[in-house]
Order: sequence, then structure tokens, then C-alpha cells
Amino acid sequence: MIVETQYARFDSIELEGGTTLSPVDIAYETYGRLNERRSNAILITHAFTGDAHAAGVSKDGKPGWWDKMIGPGLAFDTDRYFVICSNVLGGCQGTTGPASENPATGLPYGMSFPVITIRDMVRLQRMLVDHLGIQRLLCVAGGSMGGMQALQWAVSYPERVQCCIPIATTWRHSAQQIAFNEVGRQAIMADPDWCGGDYYDKKPPARGLSIARMVGHITYMSDDSMREKFGRKLREKEKFGFDFGVDFEVESYLRYRGSQFVTRFDANSYMYITKAEDYFDLTQGTGKLIDMFQTVTTRFLVISFTSDWLYPSYQSQEIVKVLRRVNGDVAYCDLQSSYGHDAFLVDIEEQTEIVRGFLDSTARLAAVAA
Amino acid sequence: MIVETQYARFDSIELEGGTTLSPVDIAYETYGRLNERRSNAILITHAFTGDAHAAGVSKDGKPGWWDKMIGPGLAFDTDRYFVICSNVLGGCQGTTGPASENPATGLPYGMSFPVITIRDMVRLQRMLVDHLGIQRLLCVAGGSMGGMQALQWAVSYPERVQCCIPIATTWRHSAQQIAFNEVGRQAIMADPDWCGGDYYDKKPPARGLSIARMVGHITYMSDDSMREKFGRKLREKEKFGFDFGVDFEVESYLRYRGSQFVTRFDANSYMYITKAEDYFDLTQGTGKLIDMFQTVTTRFLVISFTSDWLYPSYQSQEIVKVLRRVNGDVAYCDLQSSYGHDAFLVDIEEQTEIVRGFLDSTARLAAVAA
Repeated sequence: MIVETQYARFDSIELEGGTTLSPVDIAYETYGRLNERRSNAILITHAFTGDAHAAGVSKDGKPGWWDKMIGPGLAFDTDRYFVICSNVLGGCQGTTGPASENPATGLPYGMSFPVITIRDMVRLQRMLVDHLGIQRLLCVAGGSMGGMQALQWAVSYPERVQCCIPIATTWRHSAQQIAFNEVGRQAIMADPDWCGGDYYDKKPPARGLSIARMVGHITYMSDDSMREKFGRKLREKEKFGFDFGVDFEVESYLRYRGSQFVTRFDANSYMYITKAEDYFDLTQGTGKLIDMFQTVTTRFLVISFTSDWLYPSYQSQEIVKVLRRVNGDVAYCDLQSSYGHDAFLVDIEEQTEIVRGFLDSTARLAAVAA
Repeated sequence: MIVETQYARFDSIELEGGTTLSPVDIAYETYGRLNERRSNAILITHAFTGDAHAAGVSKDGKPGWWDKMIGPGLAFDTDRYFVICSNVLGGCQGTTGPASENPATGLPYGMSFPVITIRDMVRLQRMLVDHLGIQRLLCVAGGSMGGMQALQWAVSYPERVQCCIPIATTWRHSAQQIAFNEVGRQAIMADPDWCGGDYYDKKPPARGLSIARMVGHITYMSDDSMREKFGRKLREKEKFGFDFGVDFEVESYLRYRGSQFVTRFDANSYMYITKAEDYFDLTQGTGKLIDMFQTVTTRFLVISFTSDWLYPSYQSQEIVKVLRRVNGDVAYCDLQSSYGHDAFLVDIEEQTEIVRGFLDSTARLAAVAA
């Protein structure tokens, strides 16, 4: 199916940091049909460098980033559900972000863009859901940073989320997760082409952003999957070069991924979105997760992957344990996979069955309650 | 004890890459006394960014990097043993490396320095051991890249090594290990101040080297130790700054460590030494570790740490298994620690007892055999 990205504009949005952004645009796509009772809507929240194009084929032929999960007969079955995915606030794929025009100056915001949070992203998504006339979402689901948004939805707007599927995620960013993000930001800021974020009429900080992406890619894979995929294979040579060109396949892969990334992603968005991740703490600094879930009536399906060392399973298990302590409705699966953090994007067979069943039972419960 | 670094110069060294380096200097330190039979010498091989100053206090007051392990009554007991530590080939702490003068030009080598390997480092160490008149070392011991050198000693010169203590290391660099090193190299090369390695009369590529070091530091710690040390503690503030200054302690720590590192380490040495690590494969590409150990008579004590995810325990266990398959004399300890890869430098209590006992039994066996 060919899908077109749609846009909505709102007058303004209040931000957690105390400022107001005005106006604010949001890019989104929808798949499937909203039923008459408006009870079959699912919001998919994307990971760090994702976008609104989650499924189907775009006009320029690009498949969606979760195309294996969303579609007719798939986990998020578009024959049954109305699926929405929007680009996050601070992003660079249609939603207002640092590359957008600052109406006060007529120039791109750059670093004058306000620092935003996961709660801000979710607030804008709620505005979109309002705009679409949906009172209650059947589900909010996402992996990685998408999982943070899903959790935040359940805590910020519990009455508006029937069920929540946070995948390969955490309830607050850890020191190690912050550290990897900080390295990425430092790499960008160290690039002279970054120019304090004011590079939109010049060349972008491609070297810094590429380094940041290379670090990211290592953390998305596992030791195992890297050994399986690359091992010590040499790249188009039989012997070491004894120089600093590419020797190993894994070097070639990282360089390629780094250089590809800079053609599709804005360095300043990298800065702002990683900051939002690092600020993410569902408890707002209290550390008392149980307080967050006391009044939550949302059903949860929490999924983690055994080889994910960026968002390790224990972080999902912390969420599950606390939800059980308040007698919450929570299912949990720690799926066996060697793909590391990337598993939620690529290793989708088991994930599909589990999500399908969970959505089906949630829809039945909702129908009974209605 | 105040120790002075000593130097030896050799006419030339043949390198694995096919070139000859001439002349070659090596910086080293010794602690304790060589006995009359010259049978109590232990060679300590340092990790990536280490140097010859392993123990005691330097003239400018700096303690050695393994000062808690080497000294009177310590694991490497200088009342009993004669301990040697030298700076590796390609380094920047006294041994010939890319910052050294190229006699052909009178200028620093820079990137005209030949790519070197762990075997080359070990060959130069053997020349030093010859120079000191030592026929057979009681022990070669080291952690991380020091462990690679220790293993290489046992394979290259089995008749010259009574026992070998490879700690927190691997028999060949994995795709993930190569990947992290490659990111570091790319960060250096992306820094315009790197100037193709020709920066010795200008300012060094401090930003790139600092990024490389930050990545390194994350890999040296564990998720646990980072949570214990930093958690989500803010740095001299009570609320988020909502800007891109330092918010978290862990950010401050990484920035500080990065900026400190550039004052003591040469970026080109970073390039060459990481390359030597990445080329390291004890089997030279055959993958048949068993062939390497068939004729080895050296005793082994292999140590790994449970929370070390940069050189995970399974990599040590592969060595142990193959040594057992050839009925080798090998002891193995997987030490419980939360310090990650850094454990071999900081979590030394158990390590001390294990090393002490192993050295003692090796010395007794040697005395009986003599």
C-alpha cells in the first residue's frame, strides 16, 4: 500500500522546560480504518531515529520502519485496527524540530529550539489524537524510545490508553545509556562544521554525526550478532592492509552506516532527542515507580530481548515487578534473540504472535466493557 | 620507592608487516632484584594506554598503574621477584612510536610509522629480555592488551616463559572489539587538527582523541558500576538545565576523562595501538587455537571478571578449554566483580591471592627442575 504522510498544525504547545513552542507541526501516517465507534485506534511510537513512516510504501518507494509488524494480517492488523504513527517533537521528518523555521527570526531554530522531553513528545501526540477525534486509544506501542513514550502515555493519560506495549525499553535512562548518548553529542559538537548548531545554510557536521551513529550501531547489535554477521572477515582483501584503510567488514559496515545516516538525519535533532531520552525518568526523579502505577488501569504487555545490552531485560523486569505489586494487568516476555537491541525491529516472529494475541484480548475486553 | 624509567636502544627490529624499524628505543622500569641464577624475572605487559611505569613512584610523584599489584609483599612480590615493565612498541611513553623522530627525515614519523602488531611488541620485549641477560622469564603477566602480549609470548617463545597470566583478555579481537576501536580511530581522523597525523608542530587532535577516550571509558566500566558510581546524579545542580551543558555526573566524568587523556597520550599512538589489537589473532587467521598450544609447556593462570563485557569471560574460557584439550597446565578463575573491564586494575584483592599462589608454585616447580 502506498501511504502519504499527513500533517497537522497546532497553535502552540506548552513544554516541560517552561517555554511555549508556537506554532507546532506534526507529521503522521495512518494505516487501516477508524471504526464507527472510534475504538480501534493504535498509536505506534517510534524509536530515536525513526519517523512517521512506520508501514506501507512511501511515494518514493521506501518501506516503513516496522513494515513487518503493521499491515493486513500482521501483528498490528490493519484489517482490524486503525494504526497511527507520528514523527516525534524535536525530530527532522516533518514534525517541528531544530531545523524548523523559528517564526520570530524566519531562520531555522538551531540551538534556540527549546530542550524537549519525552512527556512533551507525548503531549503533542495527545493533541494529534484529539485532532483525530479519538477519545481512547486501544493501544500505544513502541520499542526503545518508543517504549518510553508508550509508558509515558499510560502514566500521563491512563484513561485514554486501553493497553500499552513497551518493548526493549526502560522506565528511566541509566548512567550507561546517558553516557553513550553524551558521546554522540560530544562528537557532533566537536565537529567544526556544527557551528554551534547554526549550519543550515552551510554543510552539516557530517563527520561528527557519523561518529555518533557508529557508536549507536554498536550498541544496537549484540556481541553475538556482530560475530555472526562480521566475525573477523576482511573486506575485499585476503591479507591485512597494514595501513588505516578498511581491513575488516565490520569497519566497512560502520563507516557506511555512518555516512548513510547523515543524508537522512539532522545533527541538531540528534542532540535534542538524545537529551529527551536522557531526561526520561517516568518517576520524575523520585525513583518511586510504584507511585506512578497506583492509579493506572491500562493493561501492559512488556517485551524485552535476551541479548539486548543497551536496554537490558532487567530494566523491563523492574517495570513488570512494580506493576504486579499494584496488582496491575501485566504480561511479560523476555524473548530469546541474538540480535541485541535491534531485535524489536528484525526478530519479529515471536513478537508478532504475542502482540497479536494481546491486542485481540484487549479488543474483546473493550467490547465487553462498552 | 622512587623509580626511574630506563632506556635501551637496538639497531633495528623486523616487523610483521615486512618493514624494518631502525633504530628502536624501549623505555622500561624494573622493581626488585634479579637473583644470581637470573630465574626470578617477571615481565609485566601493559594495557592499551599504559606505560612502563607499573609500580613505585616516579620522580614527579606519579604512582605506577599497577602499584597495588607490584611491590614488597604484593601479588608480584618485589622482595622475591625481579619485575620488568616496558612501554609497548608504537606507544608514546619512551618507546619508539609515531611521535618519535624518523631518522630519514629528522621529523616525527606520524603516519609514516609502520603498522605494528602484538607480535612485534612482544619481539621487542624479547630483545629487552635478551639485553637484560635473562634466558627464561618466570612469568609474563598482563591484563587486556597486556594479556594478548602474555599469550603471544607463550606461543612465540614457549621455552622462555615458565608461566603466563593473561587477564581479562582474548585470543583474538572480536567484531565488537574491532568496532569500538574503529570508532575511536574515526573520531581522531575526523578531527581537522589531526592533519593526516602530521600535527606535531601544531595543536593535537584533542577533540577527536577525547571522543575516542570517552567511548573507551564506557567500555571499561560495567552497567552496574556506572549505576553505582553515577546513577542519574546531577552535577552541581538540583534540576535539569534544559540546555546542552553538563546535567549529569556521568557526563561531567566522561568530559573530564576525555580532556585529561589528551594531555598524556598521543593520538597517532591511539591509532597504531588499536590497530595492533584489532589485528591480534593468536592463530594468525586459522582459527585453530589448538595448533598454537600443542607444543606449549608454559603454565597458565587465566583470569576473567564476571562483569567485563568488553573482554567477556567466555573469551577466556575458550583459551582454557583448548589448553585443557592438549592437557596443558592451566588454572582459571572467573572473578566476581562489578567493575567491568577495569576490574583487573582496581578490584585486586582476590586477584592478588590467586596470582601470589600461582607464582609461588611456579617458582617451586622451577627450583625443583633446576
